[in-house]
Amino acid sequence: MDERSIRILQAAAALGTGSPDEIAAYTEIPKSTVHYRITKLKEDGTLTNDLFDVDLTELGIEITIISEIIAEYDEQYHKRVGEKLADIEGVNQVYFTMGDTDFIAIAHLADREMVHRLISDYERIDEVVRTSSQFVVETIKDEPNPLNDFTLETLIDITNGG
Amino acid sequence: MDERSIRILQAAAALGTGSPDEIAAYTEIPKSTVHYRITKLKEDGTLTNDLFDVDLTELGIEITIISEIIAEYDEQYHKRVGEKLADIEGVNQVYFTMGDTDFIAIAHLADREMVHRLISDYERIDEVVRTSSQFVVETIKDEPNPLNDFTLETLIDITNGG
Amino acid sequence: MDERSIRILQAAAALGTGSPDEIAAYTEIPKSTVHYRITKLKEDGTLTNDLFDVDLTELGIEITIISEIIAEYDEQYHKRVGEKLADIEGVNQVYFTMGDTDFIAIAHLADREMVHRLISDYERIDEVVRTSSQFVVETIKDEPNPLNDFTLETLIDITNGG
Amino acid sequence: MDERSIRILQAAAALGTGSPDEIAAYTEIPKSTVHYRITKLKEDGTLTNDLFDVDLTELGIEITIISEIIAEYDEQYHKRVGEKLADIEGVNQVYFTMGDTDFIAIAHLADREMVHRLISDYERIDEVVRTSSQFVVETIKDEPNPLNDFTLETLIDITNGG
Amino acid sequence: MDERSIRILQAAAALGTGSPDEIAAYTEIPKSTVHYRITKLKEDGTLTNDLFDVDLTELGIEITIISEIIAEYDEQYHKRVGEKLADIEGVNQVYFTMGDTDFIAIAHLADREMVHRLISDYERIDEVVRTSSQFVVETIKDEPNPLNDFTLETLIDITNGG
Amino acid sequence: MDERSIRILQAAAALGTGSPDEIAAYTEIPKSTVHYRITKLKEDGTLTNDLFDVDLTELGIEITIISEIIAEYDEQYHKRVGEKLADIEGVNQVYFTMGDTDFIAIAHLADREMVHRLISDYERIDEVVRTSSQFVVETIKDEPNPLNDFTLETLIDITNGG
Amino acid sequence: MDERSIRILQAAAALGTGSPDEIAAYTEIPKSTVHYRITKLKEDGTLTNDLFDVDLTELGIEITIISEIIAEYDEQYHKRVGEKLADIEGVNQVYFTMGDTDFIAIAHLADREMVHRLISDYERIDEVVRTSSQFVVETIKDEPNPLNDFTLETLIDITNGG
Amino acid sequence: MDERSIRILQAAAALGTGSPDEIAAYTEIPKSTVHYRITKLKEDGTLTNDLFDVDLTELGIEITIISEIIAEYDEQYHKRVGEKLADIEGVNQVYFTMGDTDFIAIAHLADREMVHRLISDYERIDEVVRTSSQFVVETIKDEPNPLNDFTLETLIDITNGG
Repeated sequence: MDERSIRILQAAAALGTGSPDEIAAYTEIPKSTVHYRITKLKEDGTLTNDLFDVDLTELGIEITIISEIIAEYDEQYHKRVGEKLADIEGVNQVYFTMGDTDFIAIAHLADREMVHRLISDYERIDEVVRTSSQFVVETIKDEPNPLNDFTLETLIDITNGG
Repeated sequence: MDERSIRILQAAAALGTGSPDEIAAYTEIPKSTVHYRITKLKEDGTLTNDLFDVDLTELGIEITIISEIIAEYDEQYHKRVGEKLADIEGVNQVYFTMGDTDFIAIAHLADREMVHRLISDYERIDEVVRTSSQFVVETIKDEPNPLNDFTLETLIDITNGG
Repeated sequence: MDERSIRILQAAAALGTGSPDEIAAYTEIPKSTVHYRITKLKEDGTLTNDLFDVDLTELGIEITIISEIIAEYDEQYHKRVGEKLADIEGVNQVYFTMGDTDFIAIAHLADREMVHRLISDYERIDEVVRTSSQFVVETIKDEPNPLNDFTLETLIDITNGG
Repeated sequence: MDERSIRILQAAAALGTGSPDEIAAYTEIPKSTVHYRITKLKEDGTLTNDLFDVDLTELGIEITIISEIIAEYDEQYHKRVGEKLADIEGVNQVYFTMGDTDFIAIAHLADREMVHRLISDYERIDEVVRTSSQFVVETIKDEPNPLNDFTLETLIDITNGG
Repeated sequence: MDERSIRILQAAAALGTGSPDEIAAYTEIPKSTVHYRITKLKEDGTLTNDLFDVDLTELGIEITIISEIIAEYDEQYHKRVGEKLADIEGVNQVYFTMGDTDFIAIAHLADREMVHRLISDYERIDEVVRTSSQFVVETIKDEPNPLNDFTLETLIDITNGG
Repeated sequence: MDERSIRILQAAAALGTGSPDEIAAYTEIPKSTVHYRITKLKEDGTLTNDLFDVDLTELGIEITIISEIIAEYDEQYHKRVGEKLADIEGVNQVYFTMGDTDFIAIAHLADREMVHRLISDYERIDEVVRTSSQFVVETIKDEPNPLNDFTLETLIDITNGG
Repeated sequence: MDERSIRILQAAAALGTGSPDEIAAYTEIPKSTVHYRITKLKEDGTLTNDLFDVDLTELGIEITIISEIIAEYDEQYHKRVGEKLADIEGVNQVYFTMGDTDFIAIAHLADREMVHRLISDYERIDEVVRTSSQFVVETIKDEPNPLNDFTLETLIDITNGG
Repeated sequence: MDERSIRILQAAAALGTGSPDEIAAYTEIPKSTVHYRITKLKEDGTLTNDLFDVDLTELGIEITIISEIIAEYDEQYHKRVGEKLADIEGVNQVYFTMGDTDFIAIAHLADREMVHRLISDYERIDEVVRTSSQFVVETIKDEPNPLNDFTLETLIDITNGG
C-alpha cells in the first residue's frame, strides 16, 4: 500500500476524526488527495465504513496473539506493569483480571518476526515473570463498535433512557 | 441517559457513519436534534471523538468478562459454535485459538444480572462443554482504532508503503 | 454430650431463636431445663454468645472439606445440581462460580467415615462429573456474623446510612 | 438504610447478643428505638430471625469473591499470613488447606470498587505471591447456623449423646 | 536367577512365612534346598533380612511407575474400578484419593515392554477415562516395614500403650 | 495397645527378623513373653502373617497422605531434599519423578494433629517451595510383599530363571 | 523454487538415496539435469550436505507447530489414532507418551492457511477429543542425524563396541 | 556393535556425507573396510537407506524423553538457555515455544542411567527453574526426511514451483 494512504489512515486514528481538513493539516497531504484516497480505501475494502474502521488483514496485519502475563506481585504493581504492556507496539488491549490476578493482552501483528519481537518485548519488562501466548487460528468476531453488540431495548434499559 | 441519545449512538454504530443526515433518516429523529445531541454527547465525554468511539462506562456498561469456552470436538465445529457465541448479547470479540483449541470471548455488560444471563446463554449452546470466565478488575487499554497501536514507520514497513 | 443439649441447640438453629419458651415447646423439654442447659453450654464454650453461635469443634465436628464440583453442562443445570448439593448432610455453603463455571461447596464433618459418605453422596448425583476435595488443615477465620467483617464507617457508607 | 439501624445491627454482631439493653448501652441509642428498629428490620427481611442472622443483599452487600492465595513458603508462615488475610475488610472466612498448601478466603463486598480494594489489600501483604479470585454468580446455600446442616440423629450420633 | 530361587521367594510372599517347611511343601522343592537357597539369597543381597523383604532391583525389577487414573463417575464406582486396577500385574498400591477424586497407583516393572503392557491394561478397563503416568527417576525411600517410620515414643503415644 | 507389644513389633521391624531370641535380646523382654505376645498379635489381626506384616489400622494409624513436593532447583538437589523428606516421621515412601521433576511422598499418620505436624515438617525444609497433599479416602491395595504382584511365570521370565 | 528441483528433492527423500541415477529414473528428469540441480541446491543452501538434509526454511516451510492430542480412551486406541495423526500432511513426528497418556505431534507448515488445515485435520479424526497446539517461536536445534547428538565415546559405550 | 561400525556411522553424520573416501579419511579406517561395513549395516537394518538414516533402536538407543523446560525470565534468555540445552548429550531437538514461553526438548537415550544424567544436566543449568519430562511409550512416527511428510503437489504449491 501507498505510504500516503497509510499516513492518512493513521492520522484519522490519531486525531479521532475522518475530517479531510484535519487529516490534510496533520499529514501535510493536499486535501483533495486525502479525499481521493479515502474514497479509494473504501472501495477496496480497507475502510469498512465512514467511522474509519479498518480491515487489518487488508493492511497485512493478519496475526492475532492473546497473551497471559504473570508479573511479580507487589502493591499496585498492576498499574505500572499494565502501562508498560500497553506501550508495546501492536498491543491493542490489556486487561488486569481477577482470576490468577494477572494480565490478558491482545496484539495484532503482521508476521513471524513481529511475533518474535512481541515476546522479547514482554521479556524485557522487569516485573514480568512468565508469559503464555496463544495463536488465534480464526477471529470469528471483533466488533469495533460495541453498541452493535446490544439490542436497542437493552441499551435503553441499561441507561434508563426514555 | 435519554432514549433519543441512545438511538442516535446505536444508529451511528449500526450504519457505520456519523452523518447526521443518515442517522436522522434511520432514527426518524429530526436532524437538528441529532446534531445537537451529538454535540452534547461529546461534551459530556460519552463520545470520545468524531469517529463515534463511545466510552462504555459513561453508558453504565462497566463490567468486562473474558471467557474461555470449550466445545464438543467435531469437524468444523468451531464455525458453528463460534457464530452462536458471537450472537450472544454483549459479546464483543470471539477468537478460535490454537492452544487447547477452544474459544476466547470478551463481553461488556452492565450489571450482575447480565453476567448471570451471559453464563446461562453460554450454557444453552448444545456444543458447549465447559466455560471459565474471568472478571476484569481494570481495563488498562482498549484501543478502538488499532492503527494507534503502531508507529507510522512500522505501518509503512508492513505494507511496503512508499 | 447429652442428647437433650443437642436437641436444644438444634431447635435454636431450626427455629432461628434462642427463646427458651419456643425451644421448650419445640423440644418438649421443660423450660427450666432448657434454661439451665443453655447456661451450661455457654459456660463450657459450646455456645460462644447469646446469638447461639456454636463452636463446632466442641461438638466433635472438627473436619472441614472444601470441594470443587464439576457437573454436566446443561441449561440452568446449576439450579438443579446446586440444590442437590445443598441437601447433602454436612454441606454448609454452596456457590456457583464464574471461573470454570462449577460449584464450590464447604462441608463440616465429624470423622473419616463421614468424609467417605460425603464423597459418595457427591458421586450419587447424576449430573456430577468430577469432584476435587481439599482437607482444611486449619480454619483461621470463620465469622458467623458477617457484619463483624466491616467497620461501622464502611457499613454506613455502603448503605448510605445517615 | 438509616445509620442507626446499621449501628444496631453491628452492635449485635460485635456483642454477640440481641439484647436491646446491651445494644442500647453500646450504641447510646435509646432502648425503645433499638426495640422499634429491630422489629422493623425483621419486618423488611434484613433480619431473618431472632438470632440476628442478616440478609446481606438487603444491606447492598451482594458480591461474593472466593480467592485462592499462594504465599511464600516458610516455617509456620500460615499463621502469620492467615491472620493478615483475616484482618482485611470484608473477608469472612480463611482456610489453610492441604491441597497446594495455600489459603482459600471468602469475602463479601458491595461494589466493584471494593473488589478492586480487596485485590489490592491482598497484594499489599508481603508474603503473598499470587492470588486467583472467582466471582460467585449465585450463592445457592450459605447457612449461618451449621447445626441446620445435620439431622438430629446424626448430631446425637456424633456427640454420643443420650 | 535360578527358577527354583524365584519359586521359593514367591512362595514366601504368597504364604506369608519364611518357614522352610511350609515353603518346601508349597513348592515341592526339598527342604534342604530351600534352606540353602535362602542362605544364598541373603548373601547376595536379594533378601535383605529375615522378614523376606526383597530387593527388587536384584531381580531386575528396576522401573517404578506412578499413575494417576481418572474413571467414569458413578456411585461407588471406586470399589469396582479400584479392584480392577489392583488386579493388574505389577501394581503394588492403589489409593482412592479426595483431590480430584481419582486413583493413584504405583507399579513395579522390569522393562519397557512391561510399561507398554501396563498402560494397555489400564486402557482396557472400561470405566477408565484417562491416565497420566510418571516415571520414577530415583526411589529415595520405600520402607517395607512402616513401623520403622516412627520412633518408639510416637508409636506408644498413638496406641496409648503402657 | 500394650507398650510391650509395640516394642516387640518395632524391634522386629528394626531388626528385620521375627526371631523371638533376637527380639528378646533387643527389647529386654523375656523371650516367653515375646513369644506369647506375637501369638496374641496374630490372633487379633495386628500381625497378618509370619513375615511381621502389620495392619496399621489395628494400631490406630488410619490416615494416608500422598504429597507432591516441589523444591528449589539446584544441581543434585534431589539427593539432599529427598533424604530430608525421608527422615520425617511417618513418611514411608519418597520418589523423585520425571514429570515436573519433583517428589511424591506417602505418609501414614494417626490423627489430625500429626497431619498438621507433617505439613509443618515439609515447610521447615529450606529447599521446599510448595507442597500439595491429598487425603486418601480408601486404600484399595497396599501389598507389603511385591512378589505377590506378579505371576510365577512373569517372575521367571523377568529373571530368565530356569 | 523450480518444480524440477522440488521433484528431485522429494525423490531423494522418497527413495532414501541421493543417487542421480535412481532420482533420474524416478522423476524422468535427465540425469545431467538432476546432477546440475543438486549442485545448485547445495550452493544456495537448500541442501545442507551430501545426505540430502534439507533446510526447510529455504523451501518456505517456516512454521513449526507442536500439538498435544487427547483421544478417546479405548483399548489399543493409540495404534489406530496414532497412525491417523501420522498420515496428516506436514506431520513429521508422533509420540504416544506416558504422561496424560496422549500424543505429542510435531508438524512443519508453510503458512497460516496450512495451520488452519492442520487443526481441521485433527478435528476430523473421530477419536480425537481435544488438541492443544503451540506455535514455535524459534527452533534452536533440530538435528537430522541423531548420532551427532552423542560423543563417539558414548556411542561406543552404548553399543559395547570394540 | 563393532567400534569401527560406530565410528563409520558417526563420521557420516558428522561429515554430512556417505562417501567412503571421506569417511575413510576421517576415521583412518581403510576404504574397503568402510565399504564393507556400510553394506553390512544396511543388511542388518541399522542403516535404513543410502541417506544414512539410522535405526536408533538397532544401536540400543531405545528411550525417547520429551521435556518441558521453564527458565528464569530475562531479556533474550532463550538464546542462552536454548543453546545450553542443545549442547546436552542426547538432546536432538530444542524448541522455544509461545505457549508458556518455555522450551520443549526431545532426547534419545540408551538406558535408565542416561535418563538420570539428562535430568541432572538440565538441573545444572543455572537459569533452569523447572523441568517436566515425559517418557515416550511408543514412537509412532519420526520421519528423518521431512519432505516425505508432504505430497508433491503441496510442495510445488508452497514453493510456487513450475
